[in-house]
Amino acid sequence: MASSFGRIFKLTTWGESHGPALGVVVEGCPAGLPLTVEEIQFQLDRRRVGQSRVTSPRNEGDRAELLSGVFEGMTTGAPISLITYNKDVDSSKYEPLRDVFRPGHADYTYWKKYGHRDHRGGGRSSARETWGRVAAGAIARKILATVGAEVYGFTRELGGIAMETFDRAEIERNPVRCPDPNAAALMVEAIERVKADSDSLGGVVEVRATGVPPGLGEPTFDKLDALIGQAMLSIPAVKGVELGEGFGVVRSRGSEANDAFYAEDARVRTRTNTAGGTLGGISSGEDIIVGIAVKPTSSVARPQETVDVNLQPRTILVEGRHDPSVLPRAVPVAEAMLALVLADLLLQNRASRI
Amino acid sequence: MASSFGRIFKLTTWGESHGPALGVVVEGCPAGLPLTVEEIQFQLDRRRVGQSRVTSPRNEGDRAELLSGVFEGMTTGAPISLITYNKDVDSSKYEPLRDVFRPGHADYTYWKKYGHRDHRGGGRSSARETWGRVAAGAIARKILATVGAEVYGFTRELGGIAMETFDRAEIERNPVRCPDPNAAALMVEAIERVKADSDSLGGVVEVRATGVPPGLGEPTFDKLDALIGQAMLSIPAVKGVELGEGFGVVRSRGSEANDAFYAEDARVRTRTNTAGGTLGGISSGEDIIVGIAVKPTSSVARPQETVDVNLQPRTILVEGRHDPSVLPRAVPVAEAMLALVLADLLLQNRASRI
Amino acid sequence: MASSFGRIFKLTTWGESHGPALGVVVEGCPAGLPLTVEEIQFQLDRRRVGQSRVTSPRNEGDRAELLSGVFEGMTTGAPISLITYNKDVDSSKYEPLRDVFRPGHADYTYWKKYGHRDHRGGGRSSARETWGRVAAGAIARKILATVGAEVYGFTRELGGIAMETFDRAEIERNPVRCPDPNAAALMVEAIERVKADSDSLGGVVEVRATGVPPGLGEPTFDKLDALIGQAMLSIPAVKGVELGEGFGVVRSRGSEANDAFYAEDARVRTRTNTAGGTLGGISSGEDIIVGIAVKPTSSVARPQETVDVNLQPRTILVEGRHDPSVLPRAVPVAEAMLALVLADLLLQNRASRI
Amino acid sequence: MASSFGRIFKLTTWGESHGPALGVVVEGCPAGLPLTVEEIQFQLDRRRVGQSRVTSPRNEGDRAELLSGVFEGMTTGAPISLITYNKDVDSSKYEPLRDVFRPGHADYTYWKKYGHRDHRGGGRSSARETWGRVAAGAIARKILATVGAEVYGFTRELGGIAMETFDRAEIERNPVRCPDPNAAALMVEAIERVKADSDSLGGVVEVRATGVPPGLGEPTFDKLDALIGQAMLSIPAVKGVELGEGFGVVRSRGSEANDAFYAEDARVRTRTNTAGGTLGGISSGEDIIVGIAVKPTSSVARPQETVDVNLQPRTILVEGRHDPSVLPRAVPVAEAMLALVLADLLLQNRASRI
Repeated sequence: MASSFGRIFKLTTWGESHGPALGVVVEGCPAGLPLTVEEIQFQLDRRRVGQSRVTSPRNEGDRAELLSGVFEGMTTGAPISLITYNKDVDSSKYEPLRDVFRPGHADYTYWKKYGHRDHRGGGRSSARETWGRVAAGAIARKILATVGAEVYGFTRELGGIAMETFDRAEIERNPVRCPDPNAAALMVEAIERVKADSDSLGGVVEVRATGVPPGLGEPTFDKLDALIGQAMLSIPAVKGVELGEGFGVVRSRGSEANDAFYAEDARVRTRTNTAGGTLGGISSGEDIIVGIAVKPTSSVARPQETVDVNLQPRTILVEGRHDPSVLPRAVPVAEAMLALVLADLLLQNRASRI
Repeated sequence: MASSFGRIFKLTTWGESHGPALGVVVEGCPAGLPLTVEEIQFQLDRRRVGQSRVTSPRNEGDRAELLSGVFEGMTTGAPISLITYNKDVDSSKYEPLRDVFRPGHADYTYWKKYGHRDHRGGGRSSARETWGRVAAGAIARKILATVGAEVYGFTRELGGIAMETFDRAEIERNPVRCPDPNAAALMVEAIERVKADSDSLGGVVEVRATGVPPGLGEPTFDKLDALIGQAMLSIPAVKGVELGEGFGVVRSRGSEANDAFYAEDARVRTRTNTAGGTLGGISSGEDIIVGIAVKPTSSVARPQETVDVNLQPRTILVEGRHDPSVLPRAVPVAEAMLALVLADLLLQNRASRI
Repeated sequence: MASSFGRIFKLTTWGESHGPALGVVVEGCPAGLPLTVEEIQFQLDRRRVGQSRVTSPRNEGDRAELLSGVFEGMTTGAPISLITYNKDVDSSKYEPLRDVFRPGHADYTYWKKYGHRDHRGGGRSSARETWGRVAAGAIARKILATVGAEVYGFTRELGGIAMETFDRAEIERNPVRCPDPNAAALMVEAIERVKADSDSLGGVVEVRATGVPPGLGEPTFDKLDALIGQAMLSIPAVKGVELGEGFGVVRSRGSEANDAFYAEDARVRTRTNTAGGTLGGISSGEDIIVGIAVKPTSSVARPQETVDVNLQPRTILVEGRHDPSVLPRAVPVAEAMLALVLADLLLQNRASRI
Repeated sequence: MASSFGRIFKLTTWGESHGPALGVVVEGCPAGLPLTVEEIQFQLDRRRVGQSRVTSPRNEGDRAELLSGVFEGMTTGAPISLITYNKDVDSSKYEPLRDVFRPGHADYTYWKKYGHRDHRGGGRSSARETWGRVAAGAIARKILATVGAEVYGFTRELGGIAMETFDRAEIERNPVRCPDPNAAALMVEAIERVKADSDSLGGVVEVRATGVPPGLGEPTFDKLDALIGQAMLSIPAVKGVELGEGFGVVRSRGSEANDAFYAEDARVRTRTNTAGGTLGGISSGEDIIVGIAVKPTSSVARPQETVDVNLQPRTILVEGRHDPSVLPRAVPVAEAMLALVLADLLLQNRASRI
């Protein structure tokens, strides 16, 4: 159960970090959508490790193969299967971790739940699983584009350094994906410092969707907010999610927090966007704004107290080429999740009126 | 779609604020659970309005009828249907709101989505819908009790006033459900001030689960964190959710954020609980800790800028006996949602090993 | 689990034969559909017992209350809740059956599965549960009517007597709902004979849908055929289902079984309809034709060999006012199930193309 | 939507007849099940074409690769991905069929539904899709084996020739998988005759499950009967399904159709098995017996009347190496579907009691 997400536009991911391959099956993609593997690869490349000195230099062999659901460049309505083979995986370094639980990781809980687990590189719990989400998200983006909607994301805060200016064009120009070039420089420095210190940093990623038509979201339990909550908190290392002002709104008064309505160009707008683009769990037509709290990377090359499967105390030091901060790579994953939620709700919404 | 929640233990709520009745159907409750309507009513009474001077004095007629699924005091495995009739509803005061959109409410988005809506008291989007969640949650609590797990919640912060001490016994002794009696007194004052000012306040509710066995949560998309995210953000007025340190963790380093493992009484424990009781989306056996951001009540008796269905500018003033802060009543709703998530995952977990 | 059916247009039934009430919640009905409780009651009356001398004379108190989802005569998109209270139920006559298993009924299997069961009148396993299906089906019919599709059914064979002529107008004119008045008369006689003999009869019900647009059905597992299979075999007493020629086609050759295509009035038609209106599990635009095998009523007032919960041999004789053949009443239930499948697929189909 | 089947033990198939590959993802397989790719291949080989002179001689390149979910020979609870690459596919012969609809096939309905389709070899609608079902079914069989349950199937009738004796050991000894060697010989002759005549034959496949514990099946809509109905009617070419006596029971009386209970070896048994192993949609502990009507192969090398996408009349003759009867190959597919239903219900049943 539960490797699937979505009701109409639905993805199912499979594969382990050090298994032979990973992949995703996308069901419910409408027929007639032009789609090439290159468009999907473009997003996968944004997620790839080894893009710069602040992310891990491993080569994950991320090349996608498109195996079904597309015929002569167009989707057919059949499931779309995408696969990538894991190359050059060296699992030997994980051998010492076979019977010991890395703090902050899923080692202990998987072992307790399943009894039997693939410990290599985190196995199924590895962030490598997000490959399929980004691949499926690339298709979701194309569906959104048919109504003029678009998703983008960036690093809002990293290691305590918050962005102060916003220039969307800056985002992909720096290795931390921060729209403020000065903050970006400070973030890069902070990462290098913490890396030298064998430690790691967390931060806040923000994802937005523009051009989203009003009406997306299904009351009661599939509110747009609720599905975004599920989607974002399903990403490894994410420990919080908020819409619009989110946790900030709790200190304002109702008269301040309510976004006033006005009419512009024959459509209803709000003067402010405290709510982050949803009202009653349904999109209002304003930008969807989502913030997610990303914890610092759990793998740190410092001695840590833990136990093994026999409940004996152990000290471990998780070596390897881990990202000192996963934020830059979390951006395309969070974008993908938002796109997946919106594309699914867009299709669901077609059945809302007779 | 989407008035249902859960995979095995599943609830479906129905009903509008000013319709003849509201209710809930609970599917997948195991047979053999002793259950009385009084146990359910006890939780419903905790949610009821008019409990004190800081919540709205309306009488909602919350009396539950238990119509199926229980025979001679024990569940049978069949769907459990619970219903309450809306009494003394006076919809006339909503007549002026028929064609105008209240800021902060779902009026505009429902109208845009469905074309046709029951505008009386918010209709389906009213928080009155949470009646069924609390009723179903009472059953979920009984399932959790069979393994020794329990859920409780409280107000952590309200109108900028944060609790500073924690005494669980205090929670139900004050009208704001705050475990710190001094903070509680200040919160009550703040509510009365804002009420006199025809305005409203938000805050943060915390819910916890104790005694939760390790192993609950289904990777990948039905992680415990992810389902809690969906559950909490499906509650009206909630705009953020976090687990454990949540947004606070983003400023710590990995070496600080990782909860060290040790063994105690033949089981694995963690020295700290930064993660809030989950690792890799699966319960670790530590307390589940969830914080949710609740926005200030949208209904305020102050002039607000808006438009009507013809896109003409309007000024409205939402009168009525609305809670100046929904937090005290949000506590049992959030508890119910956490109980529902955990009970469902507990049942799902039975299939995790051969 | 499993008291729900459908993906977008979804119903959930609840209630026991001798409990206080029964009902159904319908999710996913599009907004803007005119709907009155009388339209629903009309179909419920067709299902009611005591309609004639060949069906059971009990008064089930089938009056429906419409509790949500409709505002000012039109659906709102919110869940539609329908309920009926069980009146004048006398459960005392079931007391002797508390610990003994009636052959042909679910008594033994429910007891074995759940340990604890409501034995009165079959409890949840009673055909009384179909009340909610017929109520929901009435709404599904209205959705189908918006595209010009319609569902009807009849008794094709009863007690070995097969219809020989077909006049749709005859169906509702005789108590067995047979389109052949001569066969109908023979069927009525057969029922009266078997009733005098304290026994019961089975038969074949046929349901058809006309005006169904081509394109309904979702490959691979939600083929129109497959969902009809599930729908029909979920009706109590049904033991077989076939589409078009069904079991008859196994003796023809491919060259005979294939329905030849031709064009008429700018649309594709087939010369014959051996397939019963589906190709590859998707509607072709021809009439959907479904046959279902209905077993003879299990409750017969004759001595039968059985055992009790202590595995001791017992002889029972199931007295009471049971239908000697359920076929006439199975017709509206089967119609409802077909309507439910088609309405759901019609809504799903809106997402099949970009 | 709808390339998935199951609630806990769930499979999702993907791939087209002439695409690069086909596969299946199995979610919800419990951890700790020993599993090798050879066990899966064994069942796939039983489904393969070219096994004898009465089935099509194409080499489909059915070799399975096991890509995830199994570690050191045991399942981990993670999704199991199985894939096979299509080899030596020559799509050129399908070029003439690009714009014309083969009678009896899904060509027209897919075209009408999706607008855009992969016409090569039937694309997604090809029976080649059942590869994934048989692969997943092999895993389901292993789950069933843990409780001593087993599934097998055979040809009951073919081309009007019915089996008259039953010897299970005979089934896999003859190319038509008939348990009666004399009938088998006649069936083989009938197939060779019809092949010479460029035509095809249908028949009835029977599948049985032994050792199934009582209690499997979820009322109301997920009755064991209902899910078997969906499962079987989702197989290409199947047009009818029945349980136990099925359509035969309609001519018996209630007193004959009811299976009398008795006790044997401290368990409840029935004297007869008219019902086919279910009561009220729940397994009784007796053998599950399912019959399915398989239509004659639609591809026949005879001139057939049809139209093209421009609605112009055409005459086609479907050449190629098609099975003159799909029955022998339908046996392992039907077995797989029954195993999938039962394994899923077995896991679901774990949540039926507190």
